[in-house]
Amino acid sequence: MIKIFRLKNVISIKDFEKEDINYILNEANKLENIAKSKDKSEALSGKILGMMFFEPSTRTRLSFETAMKRLGGNCVGFQNSNTSSVVKGESLADTAKMLEGYSDALVIRHDLEGVSRFISEIVDVPVVNAGDGAGQHPTQTLLDLYTMKKEFGEIEGLKVALIGDLKYGRTVHSLVYALALYGVEMTFVSPEELKMPKDVIHDLKKNNIRIKETNNIKDVINDVDVLYVTRIQKERFPDIEDYLKIKGAYLIDKKLVENKNLIVMHPLPRIDEISTDIDNTKYNKYFEQAYNAIPVRMAILKNIIQNNVKK
Amino acid sequence: MIKIFRLKNVISIKDFEKEDINYILNEANKLENIAKSKDKSEALSGKILGMMFFEPSTRTRLSFETAMKRLGGNCVGFQNSNTSSVVKGESLADTAKMLEGYSDALVIRHDLEGVSRFISEIVDVPVVNAGDGAGQHPTQTLLDLYTMKKEFGEIEGLKVALIGDLKYGRTVHSLVYALALYGVEMTFVSPEELKMPKDVIHDLKKNNIRIKETNNIKDVINDVDVLYVTRIQKERFPDIEDYLKIKGAYLIDKKLVENKNLIVMHPLPRIDEISTDIDNTKYNKYFEQAYNAIPVRMAILKNIIQNNVKK
Amino acid sequence: MIKIFRLKNVISIKDFEKEDINYILNEANKLENIAKSKDKSEALSGKILGMMFFEPSTRTRLSFETAMKRLGGNCVGFQNSNTSSVVKGESLADTAKMLEGYSDALVIRHDLEGVSRFISEIVDVPVVNAGDGAGQHPTQTLLDLYTMKKEFGEIEGLKVALIGDLKYGRTVHSLVYALALYGVEMTFVSPEELKMPKDVIHDLKKNNIRIKETNNIKDVINDVDVLYVTRIQKERFPDIEDYLKIKGAYLIDKKLVENKNLIVMHPLPRIDEISTDIDNTKYNKYFEQAYNAIPVRMAILKNIIQNNVKK
Repeated sequence: MIKIFRLKNVISIKDFEKEDINYILNEANKLENIAKSKDKSEALSGKILGMMFFEPSTRTRLSFETAMKRLGGNCVGFQNSNTSSVVKGESLADTAKMLEGYSDALVIRHDLEGVSRFISEIVDVPVVNAGDGAGQHPTQTLLDLYTMKKEFGEIEGLKVALIGDLKYGRTVHSLVYALALYGVEMTFVSPEELKMPKDVIHDLKKNNIRIKETNNIKDVINDVDVLYVTRIQKERFPDIEDYLKIKGAYLIDKKLVENKNLIVMHPLPRIDEISTDIDNTKYNKYFEQAYNAIPVRMAILKNIIQNNVKK
Repeated sequence: MIKIFRLKNVISIKDFEKEDINYILNEANKLENIAKSKDKSEALSGKILGMMFFEPSTRTRLSFETAMKRLGGNCVGFQNSNTSSVVKGESLADTAKMLEGYSDALVIRHDLEGVSRFISEIVDVPVVNAGDGAGQHPTQTLLDLYTMKKEFGEIEGLKVALIGDLKYGRTVHSLVYALALYGVEMTFVSPEELKMPKDVIHDLKKNNIRIKETNNIKDVINDVDVLYVTRIQKERFPDIEDYLKIKGAYLIDKKLVENKNLIVMHPLPRIDEISTDIDNTKYNKYFEQAYNAIPVRMAILKNIIQNNVKK
Repeated sequence: MIKIFRLKNVISIKDFEKEDINYILNEANKLENIAKSKDKSEALSGKILGMMFFEPSTRTRLSFETAMKRLGGNCVGFQNSNTSSVVKGESLADTAKMLEGYSDALVIRHDLEGVSRFISEIVDVPVVNAGDGAGQHPTQTLLDLYTMKKEFGEIEGLKVALIGDLKYGRTVHSLVYALALYGVEMTFVSPEELKMPKDVIHDLKKNNIRIKETNNIKDVINDVDVLYVTRIQKERFPDIEDYLKIKGAYLIDKKLVENKNLIVMHPLPRIDEISTDIDNTKYNKYFEQAYNAIPVRMAILKNIIQNNVKK
């Protein structure tokens, strides 16, 4: 185990080596009692997290805020660009330089890929990417891995099926690179229109990762540990009939998972791709996964802020 | 006096017995110095209040936030549904389950009656109803009672006139049930169109509460301790002439209350149902009442959060 | 040096004597390590700042929040009038009286001149004007002075050129009165349409302040310590051609300032009146100036809140 978290910024899961990930998962585990307010912490007392959310987000924004506050820290920032100086025509760079002066780290959500990386290059404080366009969402990946590890003890050797919209979802694009580091056997289950992009497949194969692709969930349901479900958006289909057909074929319900030895995960929000009849079963790990955002984001914030000295 | 606050959730004033109310009023009184920041408190340090405000509200939202922060705690949440995941079609239940994972208690404001009760049944953390549609607003009632008690020493034996829109106002619907517990003599003063609903009258009479109804404020002005004024909304009247006539007849001004032995209360916001010439007189207790939200909501949050162990 | 900050409210820079300003600048300097989170402070722990932002503002709002939180305090409030009770027709006075009950000081931003003064007269807690219409923005002036003092050691004897829109900018209107207290030599550089108002010129001349006016930046560039740049808004010009011509003539770029012995300041947001080729040069002090909002606003909040006892 490494002795210190080695990254200054958390921009892409591709910047992580396996032991960087393990370090965060281990730190998150140590923070569980604080995440549940059984213990108090003053670890980040007096520290300020700058929140630049140019794109709406409830879950991600609130969980970063909660993580910061559970550690005794505080947050300032904005939630969408129309209540900020951005409406006056200020550049992204200027907005970032301003907020840098106020805070000890920045969390950025933007609908354009690459924005977090760009900002990390012009400010001195650490930067966390909270989702940039179709790009990366590395802290989501870390909490997904944490959920698997909590459930199975080890990530190595798991069989994971990723289901739904594999083409546009940044969540799955981040996740597969991390799973690859652990040699996880992956199956990609999606309609033809929403298959995993070719460059991702190429990257995985180059690293000798065993992957399978199918459009039929029945092909994997009997031999899988994790069903990682994502939302299929109506807007992706020109013909509503196509959408309705696919929606039915990819519905995860109690009947499908019953007597199987698996868990169901979902980055949320869920619309109707998972039936609520799973909510009160042992298969449901998506609410636990939502909670896991807290200890994992606490671990990230605590480490990057404490490792950095503000100029 | 009971030794501990016995309710897990604060959903409806009808769930309270008299000694539960007395317990909160007594606790609020003990927290006055912290509410005015003469003393500091770390009672809820490390704790997070989840704020689900689906309906706009300044006063209620800010007073809950203030109450939490005066006790050393913190808040996360959203103020209206269009900046939250709700716009992506997420169910109310999923949103609540998510925020449950982040927080130690939830405060909910919604325009539909019953939403707070519903959520309290699916989450493990305590839930506070901060107003649900035409339903209940129990913490408003508690601070109204606290205001009367602070002023008169006892609630028992008071004569209270409720004035204005008694048909649609959730504030008065909550309040009368609580006043009934103290055997308060009530007079309902309203235009014919906005009378107290029959089922409320029925409930009160069943419990042998002395109530009077009138549409003329002059009938009560000489023999009353509290004028509890509520806003009459223009929208309730198809004919604007009707509204203007009634508005004039229900205006509370200095001339009306002068030399009377009474106080004027109002849940605020006030538009013009109370003349500002009362603001600087001894009759005005509505600003004090607004402040009383802090110690009372502190008492509620402190007790429900400290009595509950987060899973 | 005076022993205590003598103002209860911070409404207009015209209420300050030179030693009141010096007191704040000195206090700000002592708070630098806390502003940069090298030290922790609990100076305002348990205290609440009430934020009444009727007009959008990112920089000012976030820096007040940051200042409060760096000192261990907290904030409640609203950012624009349409999410507040104001939409229900509540008066400004009632909104202020409500928030007074919750907080230890109020910060007010409004698009009408005089609003902060009005509110300071009806509430007991200290009030800070965070910009009211074309009126005053005194805390901006204090941080501008702090920036100059940090850079040059003394404000006395400096030569300052104020450039751009001198007619409508409240920032410069506040600043010149303060610079006058220090006997600063000022040059006002603006197009004919946007000259410094006559009453301001009159006030300065009455106090024997040396001022010059010009529309050509070349007249001052060789003999000035500070270029204080403000934005020229397109909306001020009926004819877009006029605007474009002026915009070009007032652009501050590297070529203009190179080999000069001066610094460039700007209250931000900047659009394109300062070329980004200055950003990475020693002339750029506008980002430092943005950061200086934190120690200066900390000094103000700490002093006015600690000097006042809440009733």
